[in-house]
Amino acid sequence: MLNDYQRVRRFTERLTETLTPEDSTLQSMPAASPAKWQLAHTTWFFETFLVGRFDREVSGYEPIDPAYAVLFNSYYNTVGEQFPRQQRGLISRPGLSEVWDYRRRVDDAVARLAERGALAEDPQAGHILAIGLNHEQQHQELLLTDIKHALAVNPLEPAFRDDPRAPSEASEQGWADLEGGVRSIGHDGDGFAYDNEGPRHEALLQPHQLAHRPVSCGEYLQFIADGGYEDPTLWLAEGWNTVKSEGWSAPLYWRREADGRWTEFTLAGRSDVDPAAPVTHVSYFEADAFARWAGARLPTEFEWEAACPQAAGSRQTAGGFADKLVAAGQSVQPSAETGGNGLRQMLGGVWEWTASAYTPYPGYRAADGALGEYNGKFMVNQQVLRGGSCATSSDHIRPTYRNFFATAARWQFSGIRLAK
Amino acid sequence: MLNDYQRVRRFTERLTETLTPEDSTLQSMPAASPAKWQLAHTTWFFETFLVGRFDREVSGYEPIDPAYAVLFNSYYNTVGEQFPRQQRGLISRPGLSEVWDYRRRVDDAVARLAERGALAEDPQAGHILAIGLNHEQQHQELLLTDIKHALAVNPLEPAFRDDPRAPSEASEQGWADLEGGVRSIGHDGDGFAYDNEGPRHEALLQPHQLAHRPVSCGEYLQFIADGGYEDPTLWLAEGWNTVKSEGWSAPLYWRREADGRWTEFTLAGRSDVDPAAPVTHVSYFEADAFARWAGARLPTEFEWEAACPQAAGSRQTAGGFADKLVAAGQSVQPSAETGGNGLRQMLGGVWEWTASAYTPYPGYRAADGALGEYNGKFMVNQQVLRGGSCATSSDHIRPTYRNFFATAARWQFSGIRLAK
Amino acid sequence: MLNDYQRVRRFTERLTETLTPEDSTLQSMPAASPAKWQLAHTTWFFETFLVGRFDREVSGYEPIDPAYAVLFNSYYNTVGEQFPRQQRGLISRPGLSEVWDYRRRVDDAVARLAERGALAEDPQAGHILAIGLNHEQQHQELLLTDIKHALAVNPLEPAFRDDPRAPSEASEQGWADLEGGVRSIGHDGDGFAYDNEGPRHEALLQPHQLAHRPVSCGEYLQFIADGGYEDPTLWLAEGWNTVKSEGWSAPLYWRREADGRWTEFTLAGRSDVDPAAPVTHVSYFEADAFARWAGARLPTEFEWEAACPQAAGSRQTAGGFADKLVAAGQSVQPSAETGGNGLRQMLGGVWEWTASAYTPYPGYRAADGALGEYNGKFMVNQQVLRGGSCATSSDHIRPTYRNFFATAARWQFSGIRLAK
Amino acid sequence: MLNDYQRVRRFTERLTETLTPEDSTLQSMPAASPAKWQLAHTTWFFETFLVGRFDREVSGYEPIDPAYAVLFNSYYNTVGEQFPRQQRGLISRPGLSEVWDYRRRVDDAVARLAERGALAEDPQAGHILAIGLNHEQQHQELLLTDIKHALAVNPLEPAFRDDPRAPSEASEQGWADLEGGVRSIGHDGDGFAYDNEGPRHEALLQPHQLAHRPVSCGEYLQFIADGGYEDPTLWLAEGWNTVKSEGWSAPLYWRREADGRWTEFTLAGRSDVDPAAPVTHVSYFEADAFARWAGARLPTEFEWEAACPQAAGSRQTAGGFADKLVAAGQSVQPSAETGGNGLRQMLGGVWEWTASAYTPYPGYRAADGALGEYNGKFMVNQQVLRGGSCATSSDHIRPTYRNFFATAARWQFSGIRLAK
Repeated sequence: MLNDYQRVRRFTERLTETLTPEDSTLQSMPAASPAKWQLAHTTWFFETFLVGRFDREVSGYEPIDPAYAVLFNSYYNTVGEQFPRQQRGLISRPGLSEVWDYRRRVDDAVARLAERGALAEDPQAGHILAIGLNHEQQHQELLLTDIKHALAVNPLEPAFRDDPRAPSEASEQGWADLEGGVRSIGHDGDGFAYDNEGPRHEALLQPHQLAHRPVSCGEYLQFIADGGYEDPTLWLAEGWNTVKSEGWSAPLYWRREADGRWTEFTLAGRSDVDPAAPVTHVSYFEADAFARWAGARLPTEFEWEAACPQAAGSRQTAGGFADKLVAAGQSVQPSAETGGNGLRQMLGGVWEWTASAYTPYPGYRAADGALGEYNGKFMVNQQVLRGGSCATSSDHIRPTYRNFFATAARWQFSGIRLAK
Repeated sequence: MLNDYQRVRRFTERLTETLTPEDSTLQSMPAASPAKWQLAHTTWFFETFLVGRFDREVSGYEPIDPAYAVLFNSYYNTVGEQFPRQQRGLISRPGLSEVWDYRRRVDDAVARLAERGALAEDPQAGHILAIGLNHEQQHQELLLTDIKHALAVNPLEPAFRDDPRAPSEASEQGWADLEGGVRSIGHDGDGFAYDNEGPRHEALLQPHQLAHRPVSCGEYLQFIADGGYEDPTLWLAEGWNTVKSEGWSAPLYWRREADGRWTEFTLAGRSDVDPAAPVTHVSYFEADAFARWAGARLPTEFEWEAACPQAAGSRQTAGGFADKLVAAGQSVQPSAETGGNGLRQMLGGVWEWTASAYTPYPGYRAADGALGEYNGKFMVNQQVLRGGSCATSSDHIRPTYRNFFATAARWQFSGIRLAK
Repeated sequence: MLNDYQRVRRFTERLTETLTPEDSTLQSMPAASPAKWQLAHTTWFFETFLVGRFDREVSGYEPIDPAYAVLFNSYYNTVGEQFPRQQRGLISRPGLSEVWDYRRRVDDAVARLAERGALAEDPQAGHILAIGLNHEQQHQELLLTDIKHALAVNPLEPAFRDDPRAPSEASEQGWADLEGGVRSIGHDGDGFAYDNEGPRHEALLQPHQLAHRPVSCGEYLQFIADGGYEDPTLWLAEGWNTVKSEGWSAPLYWRREADGRWTEFTLAGRSDVDPAAPVTHVSYFEADAFARWAGARLPTEFEWEAACPQAAGSRQTAGGFADKLVAAGQSVQPSAETGGNGLRQMLGGVWEWTASAYTPYPGYRAADGALGEYNGKFMVNQQVLRGGSCATSSDHIRPTYRNFFATAARWQFSGIRLAK
Repeated sequence: MLNDYQRVRRFTERLTETLTPEDSTLQSMPAASPAKWQLAHTTWFFETFLVGRFDREVSGYEPIDPAYAVLFNSYYNTVGEQFPRQQRGLISRPGLSEVWDYRRRVDDAVARLAERGALAEDPQAGHILAIGLNHEQQHQELLLTDIKHALAVNPLEPAFRDDPRAPSEASEQGWADLEGGVRSIGHDGDGFAYDNEGPRHEALLQPHQLAHRPVSCGEYLQFIADGGYEDPTLWLAEGWNTVKSEGWSAPLYWRREADGRWTEFTLAGRSDVDPAAPVTHVSYFEADAFARWAGARLPTEFEWEAACPQAAGSRQTAGGFADKLVAAGQSVQPSAETGGNGLRQMLGGVWEWTASAYTPYPGYRAADGALGEYNGKFMVNQQVLRGGSCATSSDHIRPTYRNFFATAARWQFSGIRLAK
């Protein structure tokens, strides 16, 4: 257990080791957070919910700085006030090195807890540890998407890290025929899952089809070329308003160069759009409009989940960022994946927007106390995404995982799988 | 058919006969529209989609004023540009009497079409007529909710019409036990329905309970007294933000007087809150928070619809505004309804917020052409409401009807029925 | 005195007699007010400051409606709360006919006061009457500029009244040489003046030149053709930001038609821009940029006032709207005026932006009480305009008159006279 | 000359030596800039206008990074595009150490220019060098006021540097009687001055009085205690709106503690308000309201400047931040200064708001080219401040100096001297 803890915490550090103190302070929009803040917030999570509760009585643990309880609390009203979200980029102190120090001191406290056997003995403590690690893994992905957004603002277009990405080759698109019927949906309780993945329950599906692979950049370029961004009949009304007010004409980070080439800003700097790679950084509105243009639709999250076991093996082959980082020279950018005729790249390529609004499963009830604020209170006006992306740690990906974002969000590695 | 047309059109006119030209021009928020605009817009609908299509070839019908095509088009991109929605209150010309004249001239054209047999012969024409009448009935309700909002801004608090409402008596609350299983949901095609009510399909329900009647003002006052508006743990995160930013502390139109009494602005002016009447003018956020406070939840729209046949007879007893207006002296304010122990007042009291996001039914596909813009493009970031209100015409109410509003909207006659 | 009162009040009524109830309710931006509101507000002024003070003790006068004290108070904190300025367009009640009735009842009360001799005996009462009449004359101009702005929003471009304007002929531009030295500035106390026109004091002028006549539309068209709106070096920084954010490329109400012609919306509907007429509806930023482009500058208000007596006779020849309306068939649009070689059209053509910020004269002190709020509290972040316009009553124009508007305002009949 | 250059540049570096890389990146509002950006911008100024022009032909000087021309251009449209002002806090790269390196490389290039004799020979080069140094001195003050604002946002309230400020003692207030008459105003051309300080010209003053010293915190506390922030009759209309919308109830950085004490955030952290020290961090609106409350007014900039020679010796005794920093242990917070009965602390305590709008002097004409954008284009909607503050370098202070800020700005060391 302490092993897991240390592995996840070290990986966060490897991920962020190229960030300068200045980089780590940036907040480019209210929805994104500075890297330094995330390094501290994930630590505050363990300090508050684990060490503060399970070590205080025993060893009289005192918070490292009482002000951190306000500065690094994201949205837990139950444990107190929060520093305003949109001002996180104004926190120069504590500095990056102080935050690293904060991490080490909390890590030491967790280690002491573990050595004392508290994590193994108390199931509640073990559960909180698991939540904390999954929480940190979520932030590993956000660290990447948030810093990508912040660096993209800079006209110098600095690279987060090198990335010798090779052009890929998209397989031909095809459709898997899937049966209807009553299917069990949701996590079965074996291994960790968030509360929003349950209760496991039955859902009734209609017969349907799912595309073999996510929509590629090349296919999306055809949508653009066909006037997709100029035709209101393809869009939800709110989507069309957003296209107009935001001036969207391509996925986030794409740019049409003077010579007509399309390029995109990546974590490795600007490069050519790879037509074979899955399109990413599209909003729900764009995914929905593309589907309508293609004469198809987006899958429901139940259709997606029910089909996922059929994609057996994809968990191993797809992987997420964690594995790629270890195998040096790999990209933090989704790339095409070739394979058989079945459903491919469901896990670990791009988060796939579903047609399902993010609502509670039948019988869902948020836990009591602060951790009950983790998921439940966000179940409105968002859409579910499934599958994990190239920036998700591979052991954080599972078929029942429900990610969720607002319908205009584009800075995640979000893409499109069609259904019929 | 022409009969129906004339009945619905005349009713709109009776509804608005007390409005002054100045009243008819008001737009108190972007989501609401001036009465005069609505009188013209519903007319433009018939002129554009019915007369303009089916009479032009025969009699060479010419639009009464080409500028109306822009001024009174609400959101149909397929038929051209629209005057900006938030500026509808700046249209002084055409004046109210010109708009009445516009109505009469289009009514004459429709009558000529009918006399020529075009409506009976051409199923397409008959279908458009039916949509147009349902559309006008929707606006009958909006005319009331929008003018209520506009008049409430005026410190004179003018009454829209007299209303000798008698205090009512709430029956005791109880719970109906309802079985799970596969149920058919959606309109069966017999009689008019909007496209969003279909395709009829099967849905799987869990066993559940529904409250016998909507939440009363008295029960809602307990929620307020218990600090409901001050406790973030009761609220969705976006709801809590809205409470704070809008300063909500009670339903829309309620005011706590210096002596502690609660009053509310009604279409008949300000009066005391009736504890027995169903609470109304609450947002989805408030409905959801109230349910959490009460240890319950909101029903899904499928649970609601499946239970509705069990409320047999409620269509007759509940009624909507139309009937009440005819029986002079009745109120345009929901009031308590006594009855048996079963589900009561499901139709025609208050619109009941459901836990269901407004998404397409399996197999739904918007129609081609402009009328395909009627419903489908709004299927995102809204919640479904069911049942109709005291301001809905009784023949516009049906168990499969799906109304939808954004989660912060409060100016409709929207209320709460609990589920477990 | 009562004569003056009745003359001014009747003229307001003649001015607004073509407005429909719907027109009278419009508020097209927060800085503008509905006509009906202005009809009531000018009446409230007399009721509050004259009748309410001088008639209450004698005849026990009671306010016609206590709510009017809030609804029609513009900005007098000393006498109570004000209905929010930006919501004046939401006041449908009292209706236009009730407001006319309000006017008549207050007029009657003033007449009774006059008959009792109160106005003649009490210099304070006479002074307030004079302020009230000048105040109403200011609103006569605002009634025209505000309704022009509101009607211009309507794609029907309705005419406020007919206007058989004849094309005019601009005289050649020239420069008057004016001496420096110490000059007396400000009102000498003979006849009515606002407090901001005094105290009369000495100011030191440098030798300078003033243009013979205001800049014409033809000259302004050259500025446009020369890229005036695209060259940041011609503009104040805040002006340039405004050009960009508002998308300005010509004076307010101007439009370039498909065939290249320039037209403008006038109170008589849309018509061709007359190259000989003085340019109007330009902001301070545009006036300043034009002057820089022309190698000149704007005059200070002291230069302007000191030169004004040299324009002897212009008071008679120029005139304002009042006279024109009486001589039926005249235009409410500035037109060219031919004459000698001296300073022409200083009074009554267009309000001329000066280089002077609106600040108090040395020794200025606002009066005590509510009427002290009339002028003094606006002496910041505005520029002075001089001379009166085609929409100003001719007996409301005087050389010492200081009008003032924010630097981005364009909806007044504001124009440009150059200086060197 | 190179001496001056090096002295000013080194002082900037001493001023900012305690800033961390994270601190240096903060931008807490659009009107403020990150310290790192200012370190680079002042360097870009020399690179662009001096080295780029005078060294390019000789030594083929190439810009260190072409992207800096966009990133660090503040508002010079003549030399190209600018990175958006409100996003300066999003520039993590170049990092602080790269900016230091940039400074050194440009410093070297300037040294080479000097060694070659270019600065001495070419009066144009010498003039640009002088502007550049004065420009850098302005930024020295802004570095302090901007970082103070940014650090104040942080609940940790970090100190910029230590500051053992001793409580001071205010002398009694008194009034100097000053004669009217024609006085010469503006810089006489001897030594450096900005173009906005000329042309020197004559102005006519009325007899008046000036307060012996700036308003103290103790006096300002009386204004607060007397309800100054609750009484609209004391305020300009726009000021009162700002009080309401911003919730002002004391100067910026002041806080009333639970025990009733008033504290203020300073560059040395939070400390008690010193009643004897000059009040600072007040807006023009507050200065004007205080003056009205005190039965006085603010001086015009001409009155202020004409009186300044009478304050002979104040230049030496008052001083600015530069001297204080050298004499270690001095404060960057204005403190009381005792002295004779004459005008005291006119230079170097707090910037004194004047009643004069910032407009050009008679005959002023902005220079051609980019440096003409330095001052002239800001001459609208701002008020002049005079005298320099505790944060101004003492050799940057002069009696003719015209500082200017918008009327709601409070983050400068701005205070109040009364006049009558």
